[in-house]
Amino acid sequence: MSKDKQFVKEITPQQEDFSQWYIDVIKKADLMSYSPVRGCMVFKPDGYEIWENCQRILDDMFKETGHRNAYFPLFIPESFFQKEKEHVEGFNPELPWVTEAGGEKLEERLAVRPTSETMVGHMYAEWINSYRDLPLLINQWANVVRWEKRTLPFLRTSEFLWQEGHTAHEDEADARKETMQMLEIYRTFVEDYLAIPVITGQKTPSEKFAGAIDTYSIEAMMKDGKAVQAGTSHYLGTNFAEAFDIKFLNRENQHEFVHTTSWGVSTRLIGAMIMAHGDDRGLVMPPKVAPTQVIMIPIGPAKTRDQVLAKTYELQTEIKKAGFRVRVDAREQSPGWKFNEYEMRGVPVRVELGPRDMENGQVILVSRVTGEKKVVAQDNLVEEITRLLDEAHNQMFAKAKQFLEEHMISVDTLDEFKAFLEAKRGFALAGWCGSEACEATVKDETGATSRNIPFEPREHKSTCLVCGAPAKHTVVFGKSY
Amino acid sequence: MSKDKQFVKEITPQQEDFSQWYIDVIKKADLMSYSPVRGCMVFKPDGYEIWENCQRILDDMFKETGHRNAYFPLFIPESFFQKEKEHVEGFNPELPWVTEAGGEKLEERLAVRPTSETMVGHMYAEWINSYRDLPLLINQWANVVRWEKRTLPFLRTSEFLWQEGHTAHEDEADARKETMQMLEIYRTFVEDYLAIPVITGQKTPSEKFAGAIDTYSIEAMMKDGKAVQAGTSHYLGTNFAEAFDIKFLNRENQHEFVHTTSWGVSTRLIGAMIMAHGDDRGLVMPPKVAPTQVIMIPIGPAKTRDQVLAKTYELQTEIKKAGFRVRVDAREQSPGWKFNEYEMRGVPVRVELGPRDMENGQVILVSRVTGEKKVVAQDNLVEEITRLLDEAHNQMFAKAKQFLEEHMISVDTLDEFKAFLEAKRGFALAGWCGSEACEATVKDETGATSRNIPFEPREHKSTCLVCGAPAKHTVVFGKSY
Repeated sequence: MSKDKQFVKEITPQQEDFSQWYIDVIKKADLMSYSPVRGCMVFKPDGYEIWENCQRILDDMFKETGHRNAYFPLFIPESFFQKEKEHVEGFNPELPWVTEAGGEKLEERLAVRPTSETMVGHMYAEWINSYRDLPLLINQWANVVRWEKRTLPFLRTSEFLWQEGHTAHEDEADARKETMQMLEIYRTFVEDYLAIPVITGQKTPSEKFAGAIDTYSIEAMMKDGKAVQAGTSHYLGTNFAEAFDIKFLNRENQHEFVHTTSWGVSTRLIGAMIMAHGDDRGLVMPPKVAPTQVIMIPIGPAKTRDQVLAKTYELQTEIKKAGFRVRVDAREQSPGWKFNEYEMRGVPVRVELGPRDMENGQVILVSRVTGEKKVVAQDNLVEEITRLLDEAHNQMFAKAKQFLEEHMISVDTLDEFKAFLEAKRGFALAGWCGSEACEATVKDETGATSRNIPFEPREHKSTCLVCGAPAKHTVVFGKSY
Repeated sequence: MSKDKQFVKEITPQQEDFSQWYIDVIKKADLMSYSPVRGCMVFKPDGYEIWENCQRILDDMFKETGHRNAYFPLFIPESFFQKEKEHVEGFNPELPWVTEAGGEKLEERLAVRPTSETMVGHMYAEWINSYRDLPLLINQWANVVRWEKRTLPFLRTSEFLWQEGHTAHEDEADARKETMQMLEIYRTFVEDYLAIPVITGQKTPSEKFAGAIDTYSIEAMMKDGKAVQAGTSHYLGTNFAEAFDIKFLNRENQHEFVHTTSWGVSTRLIGAMIMAHGDDRGLVMPPKVAPTQVIMIPIGPAKTRDQVLAKTYELQTEIKKAGFRVRVDAREQSPGWKFNEYEMRGVPVRVELGPRDMENGQVILVSRVTGEKKVVAQDNLVEEITRLLDEAHNQMFAKAKQFLEEHMISVDTLDEFKAFLEAKRGFALAGWCGSEACEATVKDETGATSRNIPFEPREHKSTCLVCGAPAKHTVVFGKSY
């Protein structure tokens, strides 16, 4: 892609073309570049730093709950995929294959990992001998590849970054407890750190992970009413244990299969936070993971420039010491240009400092989210920034929550759902009889899929939206990325 | 590999078979497993955590010097390698190729990256327009693959983890300054954090990076006298800029090529720290990166167990608060067994606590490195641990430094060097006329290669060890991993 194409002059309004708005925003805010490899993207520093901030928070949460990190090979022998029937069917169409290496044709093709269940299964069979080795609680931060036909930066790319947890347990109860614990960690992270409200629930059998007994997910709503699956946690039963012969000597001195789980979130969270919060002025970054939480802009004429700049750096040091990610923009461009630039980049708090402010021992603070503009004593700077960031997070979450509630309709029939999708955007809450056929009908006729069976639906529906039979479950349906 | 093979009963003494000692130690200390993919290893939690600790320290150092992280694609189109002649010759024999993906044969083969210079070059051509975009200071944490024929865990594996810095500058002076700055960061890290003394210098032309103008390295000595190249920093001149057309508008409004650098360290550092410090009892972990810095072992009879354990956890909390990585081993095994276990794992400080110690408000501290055993008041625990860890680091560095000095001989002739290698182990400091032929002769006749041309050799040699002509450089030669 040429230099010109990567440069975006104006951001397309969301109402006009949401997809184009998204592409415009991530390009203009300099989060990514398209790469010369089909479906693969480059994470530029401002995009990658969002991921680094997510990593640090999640990694702490994983470690607090007893998990440790490990690293498994990138390549997986072809034969490994054959061992779990559903797994091979699920992933085979998406795999890239290494067939030659070191100048020779390989005897067995190696897949570039789409996920590591099979490799982990092989290793766990070697590592686990007795109940004393359990639970085994391991996480991996890694790149994975799934050869996607239609890609979208951050949300669906052939290579992406993620974490994948893999745990082994003595029994079903302990493994299910882990599965739910990790889902709850994801919910906490996405709601409390990314300010995105989610619907927590169980995937229907047709939408579960290839090889899982049960898959649970958190589902988020983007501003165009589409869903992003923001995290999944799987109870794998003894499926992978049987496929890879992961047995342990139990407390009764008997050999039995371990019960395993896996769970993951990926860089698609970056896409989700952009689409859940952004507006026509650009990004609105969740304060807790924003690469830059505070941008400082010195203003005023050339003659006071050095003085103002010195004071700006002095205050920056203070803000940094308080633990905030703060940058100074001392370039030549006009303050007005810079104000627009950092609004577009979604930096939560802007600090302006000019000669008059210096005289008065004050600064001007502006919040990207609430729009509040306030003169603040320099002595209270850190305190006020803390408050503004907290308020920004809370308001972002409340706004997104309201949006989700307003864009989720209850429907009794498929026609109702179709009419809703034609007129508006969002999710439908509906009864479902539990048959695959009815679920497929919804997909065929609306393009929407079942997102999940929420643990706590707003209301319980009594009849299937397709066949009218008594509902087994209340399901959230929606179009998705 | 079967379960039995991965279990090591006794550690082979270093003098008997150093390579076997190394394999025994890393297996017994549970740092890694062999994987089913040729040449690829699994980093188990205790092995991976060493890398995590290194990452955190290095990442801070990179960021303090103005670098930011980014992420580039895993796959590199075949045509990219053709663009820089030396680069393709250097890496082609080691590349794994993806030839099929998503069920189709690819039109152009994709290499799994052995290093990212070419991909970065392609992207920098797009990103860099003007001198205002320079310097561009980017680092990447990633996995890379080089299909190795002979592998050794951590030190040489087909897939490994590393960081690769890639920077672009307005002119040679600025790029060379960066090259040396990063070499100095590596020296500081390896000496001050891993306690391994290194020889800093320049690689000879035949040993430099494929595509570089100049390569600089830090070279460390293992306990068998062999060298490990612990980090490299390359000045690439305009080689990659010309190959990928990375031009910028300079301050005189003229287009010119940028000057680039690259620099990297990898998970082979883990192998280096094991081989530089370990002894016949097992690992000796450098305190600043040890996964466990302090191991706490409760002792005494069953009846006081709960009380002792409660106090142990209480003290653990205190030690953790002070910022140390501390674990408690509350398992059933005997204290004696545990003492041996954590000595073998190289944990720097052991804390023992029994009922008598509780009565007296004390604990027993034992240092893995200095062997010091001391009764310490619980009130002084954190202070004493801090001191013991500092002393351990200092003593490890001093010991390794003395070893390096004692195992580096000055030689005037090739025969002298051969005689040295037959009788002892280590490096030779020798004069070199600068000809490739003489350098090749050393390699052919001794198996040793030029490690680097040290910036500050212990002495300056005046004649070439091979041909006797006047020496252009004083070179360190050694066998290497």
